[in-house]
Amino acid sequence: MVQEEIRRHNVGTLLRHVHLGGSVSRTELAARMKLNRSTILALTTELTAAGLVREELPADTGRAGRPSLVVRPESERVYVLAFDVAVDRLVAARITLGGIMLDRREAVRPRAGADLDRVVEVLARFGHQLYEAAPATSVCVGVGASYCGMIRPGDGMVRFGPDLGWVDQAFGAELDRRLGLGLPVSVGNEAHLGALAEQLRGAGVGFQNLIYLHGDVGVGGGIIVGGNLLDGESGYGCELGHMVVNPYNGRPCGCGSHGCLEAEAGERALLDAAGRPAESFGRDAVRAVVDDADRGDPAAQEALRRIGDWLGIGVANLCNLFNPGMVIFGGMLRDLYPGAAAQVRARIAANVLPVARERVRLRTSALGDDATLVGAAELGFSDLLADPLGVLTRTGA
Amino acid sequence: MVQEEIRRHNVGTLLRHVHLGGSVSRTELAARMKLNRSTILALTTELTAAGLVREELPADTGRAGRPSLVVRPESERVYVLAFDVAVDRLVAARITLGGIMLDRREAVRPRAGADLDRVVEVLARFGHQLYEAAPATSVCVGVGASYCGMIRPGDGMVRFGPDLGWVDQAFGAELDRRLGLGLPVSVGNEAHLGALAEQLRGAGVGFQNLIYLHGDVGVGGGIIVGGNLLDGESGYGCELGHMVVNPYNGRPCGCGSHGCLEAEAGERALLDAAGRPAESFGRDAVRAVVDDADRGDPAAQEALRRIGDWLGIGVANLCNLFNPGMVIFGGMLRDLYPGAAAQVRARIAANVLPVARERVRLRTSALGDDATLVGAAELGFSDLLADPLGVLTRTGA
Repeated sequence: MVQEEIRRHNVGTLLRHVHLGGSVSRTELAARMKLNRSTILALTTELTAAGLVREELPADTGRAGRPSLVVRPESERVYVLAFDVAVDRLVAARITLGGIMLDRREAVRPRAGADLDRVVEVLARFGHQLYEAAPATSVCVGVGASYCGMIRPGDGMVRFGPDLGWVDQAFGAELDRRLGLGLPVSVGNEAHLGALAEQLRGAGVGFQNLIYLHGDVGVGGGIIVGGNLLDGESGYGCELGHMVVNPYNGRPCGCGSHGCLEAEAGERALLDAAGRPAESFGRDAVRAVVDDADRGDPAAQEALRRIGDWLGIGVANLCNLFNPGMVIFGGMLRDLYPGAAAQVRARIAANVLPVARERVRLRTSALGDDATLVGAAELGFSDLLADPLGVLTRTGA
Repeated sequence: MVQEEIRRHNVGTLLRHVHLGGSVSRTELAARMKLNRSTILALTTELTAAGLVREELPADTGRAGRPSLVVRPESERVYVLAFDVAVDRLVAARITLGGIMLDRREAVRPRAGADLDRVVEVLARFGHQLYEAAPATSVCVGVGASYCGMIRPGDGMVRFGPDLGWVDQAFGAELDRRLGLGLPVSVGNEAHLGALAEQLRGAGVGFQNLIYLHGDVGVGGGIIVGGNLLDGESGYGCELGHMVVNPYNGRPCGCGSHGCLEAEAGERALLDAAGRPAESFGRDAVRAVVDDADRGDPAAQEALRRIGDWLGIGVANLCNLFNPGMVIFGGMLRDLYPGAAAQVRARIAANVLPVARERVRLRTSALGDDATLVGAAELGFSDLLADPLGVLTRTGA
């Protein structure tokens, strides 16, 4: 490793601490980065000159004496555009360095029948509105987008988007073209980005090994292994919804197979188990089952038990494979989980080897429906955090 | 990162290239490490002075002109002791820097009834024999051991060793004490180490994402994610044998549950499916079923088909989760796989999302029954490769 790489690494690492921490003293930065104070001062000076951080007095510490300065992100100046193509909505937001959502647009998305052109048209319009509304002194440093399907890393091609029927659609390139901001658009799978968001700013802060399950029409996953998102050989790992749990008697799955976790524990399985009409769907329908179960409806309670058992089998398998510190339930699973927790815990007790379940915690998503959008913003910031001064030079800021 | 850390990192990385490559030119080292030739020269000089590498003329290149020197490991001088507690044998070996097995001892291990004291006594005796037989000028730089159970990282405590009935047995500490070499004993799970060995020196060289399935009495796994062994929150990940694939009609498993992959696709399942007597067991019994199937015995063929389907379900699930570049079958699965490959491939085709199976290759272990021992040796070398000069100083070499 050469000197220039180390400097870039250190500048990026310091900015990451400030971006995620919001307000960090130089002493704390020196301790976290295992660098001496003069190196921290030099790095901070560089980032301040670049307009990425500033130093100021901390909020009243309640202690006498001169308080030491804290380093803060330049949240009023530096931002990304974040987009989310979810199963039921299209969202765009302006999110600052430091992670504050300043402005947001949202539209209802029909469950089917939206083609690439229509989706990108809505998102690009929102993006332009957000960009125009930003202060003239501010600078957009990146664009991140979340999509509910399998995404090719590098160019944001949607390889497989089952709910919209998309196969090999150039989503990233088209959004890039229509935005026309001259900034690369980074696209990620929604559950991958949800995992990232929960780890950086949600229920999983501080965890290096966590699993995020995202349920909506399907069941997706994002898995953090040793601090990094598992992407596998070509970016298509974490497809926990297509883990087969019921191979010989399983329900048909949207993927063409049978007995996948998604087929047994997804939205349709729950609604069918609760005897809801075939045309019912969506978050409200799921919540209605959960509410009915809470009110004592036996069919709804039995449906939650049945789905909870399948969900528990899936989670137990994941615990045996990944020995995670935390499992987080997001999307509609956030609504479903409390009523199914007993079954999930029972399966973990029955099926996970004792030493592999000693430390696992089960939680619902702390960021809720914003998890994927927050993850998209973090993806948008990743180039800046890898090379802050290089990116600023390239964006002309 | 500070200067001293970088130097240590670079010295270790260069030694790793030579250890794994066997013979690498300075030009090649400079290219792989992205360092200039003068830095490579300085690092090589340090490692040569420490007696870890030497430079020499390459074997005849067949080209005219002065050949450039190659850097080789000091294989005659530097070695580790490697141990393997497998289900049917106890093995010890002296393995050099560069990975050559110079000396080896092996004993049959009874399937049950061996306590910690007995196992360690045999291994320590072998270890002393190997140590005494080594040239007086050579230096032992580490000790690695493979164990067929769940191992606590750090101290080599066997948390759960199902085939010997061990729970919380201080295997690493006891082997360390009985060897009395003053070298820390590093212990790993056999399938984890098999994965490592196949990645470094076997079928998976060059692969950053691979899955190694190890079958014997049970079915274990080692999973490499992004170049590193998945260990999870506390070192107990990769337990793919206890992934539940048949939750409601499953065979009982040694773990106390039902329908685990190990229960459906392990040795007992195969022997039962082939109608072999309940008291049959072991590698020879498995091979007899495979041979009978090759000879056209319908019961043996049907047994392989049935086990192959369950194995395929497990492998398909792993492909959806990990998007691996390669899946490697080791232990008795190495014998079983060729007769079950059609079923495994059919399940992958049916159950793995197309984009996640585009690049996966299926292979049998290249290292065979030595995979775990080779992995133990690599574990034994890990301290040296992390800090070559520091370790030599500590061992007084």
